[in-house]
Amino acid sequence: MMTTVRADRGTELTAKQWSTEAALRMFHNNLDPDVAERPEDLVVYGGTGKAARDWPSFDAISRELKNLEADETLLVQSGRPVGVMRTHEWAPRVLIANSNLVPDWANWPEFRRLEAEGLTMYGQMTAGSWIYIGTQGILQGTFETFAAVATKRFNGTLRGTLTVTAGLGGMGGAQPLAVTMNEGVALCIEVDPHRAQRRLETRYLDEIADDLDSAIERCLAAKAAGEAVSVGVVGNAAEILPELLRREVPVDIVTDQTSAHDPLAYLPVGVSLEEWQDYAGAKPDEFTQRARESMAAHVEAMVGFLDRGAEVFDYGNSIRGEAQLGGYDRAFAFPGFVPAYIRPLFCEGKGPFRWAALSGDPADIAKTDAAILELFPENEQLARWIKMAGERVEFQGLPARICWLGYGERHLAGLKFNEMVASGELSAPIVIGRDHLDCGSVASPYRETEAMADGSDAIADWPLLNALVNTASGATWVSIHHGGGVGIGRSIHAGQVTVADGTPLAAQKIERVLTNDPGMGVIRHVDAGYDEAKTVAADKGVRIPMEG
Amino acid sequence: MMTTVRADRGTELTAKQWSTEAALRMFHNNLDPDVAERPEDLVVYGGTGKAARDWPSFDAISRELKNLEADETLLVQSGRPVGVMRTHEWAPRVLIANSNLVPDWANWPEFRRLEAEGLTMYGQMTAGSWIYIGTQGILQGTFETFAAVATKRFNGTLRGTLTVTAGLGGMGGAQPLAVTMNEGVALCIEVDPHRAQRRLETRYLDEIADDLDSAIERCLAAKAAGEAVSVGVVGNAAEILPELLRREVPVDIVTDQTSAHDPLAYLPVGVSLEEWQDYAGAKPDEFTQRARESMAAHVEAMVGFLDRGAEVFDYGNSIRGEAQLGGYDRAFAFPGFVPAYIRPLFCEGKGPFRWAALSGDPADIAKTDAAILELFPENEQLARWIKMAGERVEFQGLPARICWLGYGERHLAGLKFNEMVASGELSAPIVIGRDHLDCGSVASPYRETEAMADGSDAIADWPLLNALVNTASGATWVSIHHGGGVGIGRSIHAGQVTVADGTPLAAQKIERVLTNDPGMGVIRHVDAGYDEAKTVAADKGVRIPMEG
Ligand SMILES: NC(=O)c1ccc[n+]([C@@H]2O[C@H](COP(=O)([O-])OP(=O)(O)OC[C@H]3O[C@@H](n4cnc5c(N)ncnc54)[C@H](O)[C@@H]3O)[C@@H](O)[C@H]2O)c1
Ligand SMILES: NC(=O)c1ccc[n+]([C@@H]2O[C@H](COP(=O)([O-])OP(=O)(O)OC[C@H]3O[C@@H](n4cnc5c(N)ncnc54)[C@H](O)[C@@H]3O)[C@@H](O)[C@H]2O)c1
Repeated sequence: MMTTVRADRGTELTAKQWSTEAALRMFHNNLDPDVAERPEDLVVYGGTGKAARDWPSFDAISRELKNLEADETLLVQSGRPVGVMRTHEWAPRVLIANSNLVPDWANWPEFRRLEAEGLTMYGQMTAGSWIYIGTQGILQGTFETFAAVATKRFNGTLRGTLTVTAGLGGMGGAQPLAVTMNEGVALCIEVDPHRAQRRLETRYLDEIADDLDSAIERCLAAKAAGEAVSVGVVGNAAEILPELLRREVPVDIVTDQTSAHDPLAYLPVGVSLEEWQDYAGAKPDEFTQRARESMAAHVEAMVGFLDRGAEVFDYGNSIRGEAQLGGYDRAFAFPGFVPAYIRPLFCEGKGPFRWAALSGDPADIAKTDAAILELFPENEQLARWIKMAGERVEFQGLPARICWLGYGERHLAGLKFNEMVASGELSAPIVIGRDHLDCGSVASPYRETEAMADGSDAIADWPLLNALVNTASGATWVSIHHGGGVGIGRSIHAGQVTVADGTPLAAQKIERVLTNDPGMGVIRHVDAGYDEAKTVAADKGVRIPMEG
Repeated sequence: MMTTVRADRGTELTAKQWSTEAALRMFHNNLDPDVAERPEDLVVYGGTGKAARDWPSFDAISRELKNLEADETLLVQSGRPVGVMRTHEWAPRVLIANSNLVPDWANWPEFRRLEAEGLTMYGQMTAGSWIYIGTQGILQGTFETFAAVATKRFNGTLRGTLTVTAGLGGMGGAQPLAVTMNEGVALCIEVDPHRAQRRLETRYLDEIADDLDSAIERCLAAKAAGEAVSVGVVGNAAEILPELLRREVPVDIVTDQTSAHDPLAYLPVGVSLEEWQDYAGAKPDEFTQRARESMAAHVEAMVGFLDRGAEVFDYGNSIRGEAQLGGYDRAFAFPGFVPAYIRPLFCEGKGPFRWAALSGDPADIAKTDAAILELFPENEQLARWIKMAGERVEFQGLPARICWLGYGERHLAGLKFNEMVASGELSAPIVIGRDHLDCGSVASPYRETEAMADGSDAIADWPLLNALVNTASGATWVSIHHGGGVGIGRSIHAGQVTVADGTPLAAQKIERVLTNDPGMGVIRHVDAGYDEAKTVAADKGVRIPMEG
């Protein structure tokens, strides 16, 4: 099928109420060619993260969302609509479970077998749960992560430092801009020239070098001059990173965002871009083995930079685990970014709060930006981000914004937006959601729950409780996924999206969901013994039975 | 701690409303010494299936349930209360996630490590979700299986048929009574005379024969007379079954519930009862080899009866696999009981509907029994069960009943009970729940979802959607568990309990939950391609987008 999908704009509804119109628009928005990586294959981002199982499922989901009443709920099983049930007006309009497998069968070969049989799909995080907003989503988290690196090691700025990373895909493409926003120099290795080109066009990447020599030369000159610039170089990270190490290039920070979580999406050394798809499809086991061997070489070089004193971290793509499977035994010598930089924020219930304007009008987002600045005047970092985002971020699909807010903050923003819809200040309703990578919505021992203080990394009750409590609090759609981010077998996570349509009922739902959802983060970290979380719980009255 | 726990009875509340009083009483009922196997360790049944993590958690759950308001929700993470959140009156009062692990860590050693650290507990199915009602559940399941055999092959009754089985242990001991409840004759082979004796004392077994000759004589006379009787014979099944075959005894049905899944718990031919434990302990490999050889002979005789036209099935004890390891190559000539008998019921949304009387008054259950008979007058099998259960089943803890009802039936029963509470016909509210072993609530590739028509055995989206839709439909408590029945790594399943307190709101919730919950079974089996399910969906108006 060759349909080009794009969300409707404006105030005319094709669904029966705004809650279902919102789901329909966000579902379609995920597949907008300006948003999705491969819309023709229903792939949104993150390797093969899809919005729907297949085109017949896409059509049926669209049809059902148009027909759904305000007390009905659509059930989606790995991208396929499997039932419509009568619920009630406080219930979600859509319930989604993607990619979940019984644990003993939760491995890539069985997943691929089931996928080939048409029985499942890979939902990633916001792909199959219809709240992907393009690379802005990760830009904010990436910006804050690099800011934290700057604070920890470089006196609050990356000026005069060189960061080397790889992967300029859907997520990784945010890295060059996040580094230059922190005033640093970024050298970004990407094996696919079209990917690099795309980042250049969207102004996330400043330049593409002709070859490695000129890339190094350009970066070192910029580093010396304190200039903020990002440079792409086309090549295989498993060759280029060891080469940089061999040449003793003075690199300050090393990370990586190739699609290492899925070995078939990491190009091994010695395989050409053209051979990639056919080879991976025809001989997945052999390809996997070669990809892991290349990742072993790649990670060995990262550890080499670590040994030379660089700040090195895994950026959530499982490359350490895959490199270990590839035979490299020091893969876990450097930490994941969560324990290193993000967990203290999670203890406060902070996480990636995002929203989109269903009107399609960028002016609506500008107004919400102003509202956020007004609501949290004391938060300077938030103000810096909101202003910079307004200047530098180009919207993909429906205009959207993201910023990190904590427990006690998110519901204030949501209620404010709902008031602005009610008063007519905004021209149409706002959807409020988040990534599954949040404080209380994910169990992922190689990323979000790596090295928990009490050793509870692998306990998966939390994201399931998160999905259940959001379903019980009035979210508009709720999802439970397996394998997002770090791959099949390695994570369980949940998402929620809630619509601010300006009604009093929406306000009640927003207040509960945007309190309880980050509340899960606070109680999860209290339970694991984090004092920061206990302080937040005590200060803000989060009710935790075992704390008395 | 040495507390003896027993649910309150009567109409005086210690909680703030019946919904939370119900949760409190059923939580305590699970730990009643008449119900639980090891209440002092909080163990309810099924190995180490627990109701709460530890005694401090028990106390805190009890306290929170007493204090909870009608718009608040308690969150329980593997038997420990971790939060109380404001929701709304349609929301469940308790949300539970037990034993869930990220798949790559979902194995016994990691589970035991986390359990030892106090971070999780094993919830089994109804132990950690507070709706266990004692051994009545096993009896009913066994009755239902033999009833399904009767439906498939013998015009709906086992009258005039002879069933031969072996094993009169914890589960297998239900077989003789289940057969006679279906009006048939059962010949039960048990190697341990004490086990047979115990079944006689609890009236599950009618007679024990002096020897094989008199056992055969008694059974054939009863078969000819259409008399329902169960006869035990002490001996080794691997000798007696081949002997019955050699003598050409006209057997109609053959199955087995020896503990074949554990070769050290199956007595090989030529080993005496007295030698058993020492021999198995001293030479486990040799013992295993001999047990498997005996199982090969045992299963070869089962296949012999199959070849003569008998109905033969594996009753979930892995005897086919063990016999194959013992060298018999036609072991899988007969099917497992789920694909053979239970799946057709699942296609109709049929499953283990159960309820308990919060009054504690057996008269309330007698009245609900009568109501069931009145509601479904055409269902003879159901009538047979309800009448026999009323006579033969002794209550453990709060009076309770179980029977299998399908899509379009369960909500009628629930609404009727709610009316009876409202009118005062029943002296207190009724809780309505079920085992997690239900049509649309479990993914378990070695049992409930073995050999699905489309190969989707391991897809775990279904139980998660089940939990979400029950949460969205008004259930009073909802649970998601991992590893029940078949062990860690092998299953994901969900439970729900809904309170009939006689209010109009409860009626609305009951109608939705008891329609949508079995509805998950119908849509799951439609999705897998079962025509029976498609017929039910079409006849009863189950809305399935991809069928539209
Ligand atoms: N840090 C986080 O919070 C976070 C969030 C989401 C995703 N991720 C992970 O980050 C990774 C990247 O995600 P994405 O959405 O950008 O994936 P993507 O598939 O869109 O992009 C990956 C890029 O890596 C390139 N690549 C593959 N092999 C390479 C090699 N050997 N050398 C150089 N380049 C190579 C590909 O050409 C592609 O452009 C994934 O593993 C994802 O799971 C992390
Ligand atoms: N169908 C289901 O859904 C289901 C559910 C739970 C358990 N099971 C399986 O059913 C089997 C029985 O469970 P149980 O709880 O009754 O076990 P159990 O150990 O309590 O009883 C097994 C009985 O078999 C007898 N036995 C052993 N070897 C024998 C032989 N050679 N000949 C005759 N009798 C022999 C033992 O003396 C014992 O009484 C187990 O394998 C269990 O896993 C099935």
